[in-house]
Amino acid sequence: MPTQDEIRAAAGRIAPHIRRTPVIRLAPAETGLEHPLVLKLEHLQVTGSFKPRGAFNRMLSAAVPEAGVVAASGGNHGLAVAHAARSLGIRAEIFVPEITPEAKRARIAATGATLTVGGAAYDQAREASEARAAETGALIVHAYDQPEILAGQGTIGMELEEDAPELTHVVVAAGGGGLYGGIASWYDGRVGMVIAEPEQCPTLMVAGLMGQPTDVPAGGIAADSLGARRVGDLAFAVMMEQGGRAVALADEAIRTAQRWLWDRLRIAAEPGGAAALAAVLSGSWTPPAGARVGVVVCGANCDPGSVAG
Amino acid sequence: MPTQDEIRAAAGRIAPHIRRTPVIRLAPAETGLEHPLVLKLEHLQVTGSFKPRGAFNRMLSAAVPEAGVVAASGGNHGLAVAHAARSLGIRAEIFVPEITPEAKRARIAATGATLTVGGAAYDQAREASEARAAETGALIVHAYDQPEILAGQGTIGMELEEDAPELTHVVVAAGGGGLYGGIASWYDGRVGMVIAEPEQCPTLMVAGLMGQPTDVPAGGIAADSLGARRVGDLAFAVMMEQGGRAVALADEAIRTAQRWLWDRLRIAAEPGGAAALAAVLSGSWTPPAGARVGVVVCGANCDPGSVAG
Ligand SMILES: Cc1ncc(COP(=O)(O)O)c(C=O)c1O
Ligand SMILES: Cc1ncc(COP(=O)(O)O)c(C=O)c1O
Repeated sequence: MPTQDEIRAAAGRIAPHIRRTPVIRLAPAETGLEHPLVLKLEHLQVTGSFKPRGAFNRMLSAAVPEAGVVAASGGNHGLAVAHAARSLGIRAEIFVPEITPEAKRARIAATGATLTVGGAAYDQAREASEARAAETGALIVHAYDQPEILAGQGTIGMELEEDAPELTHVVVAAGGGGLYGGIASWYDGRVGMVIAEPEQCPTLMVAGLMGQPTDVPAGGIAADSLGARRVGDLAFAVMMEQGGRAVALADEAIRTAQRWLWDRLRIAAEPGGAAALAAVLSGSWTPPAGARVGVVVCGANCDPGSVAG
Repeated sequence: MPTQDEIRAAAGRIAPHIRRTPVIRLAPAETGLEHPLVLKLEHLQVTGSFKPRGAFNRMLSAAVPEAGVVAASGGNHGLAVAHAARSLGIRAEIFVPEITPEAKRARIAATGATLTVGGAAYDQAREASEARAAETGALIVHAYDQPEILAGQGTIGMELEEDAPELTHVVVAAGGGGLYGGIASWYDGRVGMVIAEPEQCPTLMVAGLMGQPTDVPAGGIAADSLGARRVGDLAFAVMMEQGGRAVALADEAIRTAQRWLWDRLRIAAEPGGAAALAAVLSGSWTPPAGARVGVVVCGANCDPGSVAG
């Protein structure tokens, strides 16, 4: 797992390319919860999700070959890599599955990256991307399972601790676990980590129960962001070392949180971006008395018309 | 005009009821401008606009009669008053004109306030509200022309200076001028004020040119937020004392800024909420070399599906 120094180094490397996203505090009266909430507004990040943090860190840490970079993604990671490639003057090939919504495809294509759509879910796009990298020699920028990716996503933890040092718990959504793994590595036990996953793609929960990374179904309304087939080896290792309470959420709880974000805060989050909040609002996870809870709102790449209730 | 002490007192009074909204910084490379931008994300405020700051301050400063409060509004102020009334256990009657969009009407009605829709534009709703207040004895909570309203809106300036002390200029949208008047009063000359108005309702610009508050047409895509018929006396007095550069914007420039906010930041602002940014992005106002510019994003009460390009 990345050290604090590696995460600090990542922060320095990516700083010219990413935004320092702000937090907003919500009092208990606003949520009906017993504890205050701090939302980290990472959907305001460049490209509309947290993914450029890891993508830039990977691409700025490696020698990128002539063939450029290749990535597979439900959409957000692909958009981040495509954006980073354009910023850095690198070629990019992005593979996404058929479930990737038009809002994401169009943004990837607009960067000038080569976009290939194919396969039912993320896992097939991943296979196609790896085959392609083997052919061309392009650098693989993995969506969640490379050390530079975890270090990049970990910069969210660094910022959050700076802006909200009072937190006792941090709730994050997980697909392959890069976001969780990076943030948990930053905190290194200084907060309790809560991992929000859809019931229909509970990669970290099942890995925890089985004692090893294990394939799970990858469906539901957040499959285009949280639909990895299994947890990454790195995130699994972090979870074994750091712990973290995994919470499985029904689509309806995610949808309710997505609507709540629009209704109460005028935030148009995508389902995966609202999942961490769903863990808290739905009561699926109940923090202990005296908790101060941070929640990462991590993506807003959806049709904005889809968020209203 | 309110003093800094009055604005600080307002901040203390309203603190339990409003959110401390964050800022986000954008580097020149992100905007194509020569100078950095700081956006104050006031659309994240309770009720989706800055209006509760003034509304709560007025209602917490006065003895509210049994008949409650009455307000006229294009929508946002009415929603703020209705929300504050519910929070404080007060009756509220809200008058809005026919141009007030459904997104705003429905939210007002949902608070339990009495909602009356009538008249072509804000000014007719204002007349109806004043007639009603004369009948019932309810306390008028004006949309922009009362000292407590300016002091409440001025708390935005206080927060912005705290979070971005480096600013040399602050750009705000204006209808009746309460937002401008409050923020300009806070800064008291420490920044240059820029006033963004639609070409189709240029209340402050015309008042400045005519040397007195003067009726103007009130149309265009932001009329439901910036469509006051004339500047308030208080804001006019502030402008005479403090100065401020008024900029008139075509609807198209406002619409472009609204789309830009969604495209680049996943912020779903309403037209009036995007007007200040439009002044900057459109080049209608060009800051001097070395400027550091703050922009208030002040409302998001629209159909979220309307913001995409
Ligand atoms: C919005 C959003 N949230 C959460 C995640 C999960 O990230 P990770 O795969 O690192 O667990 C993703 C991944 O694409 C995402 O796009
Ligand atoms: C979103 C928004 N911006 C700006 C304004 C203008 O405020 P003022 O009338 O204080 O100038 C309003 C007023 O309703 C508004 O709703």
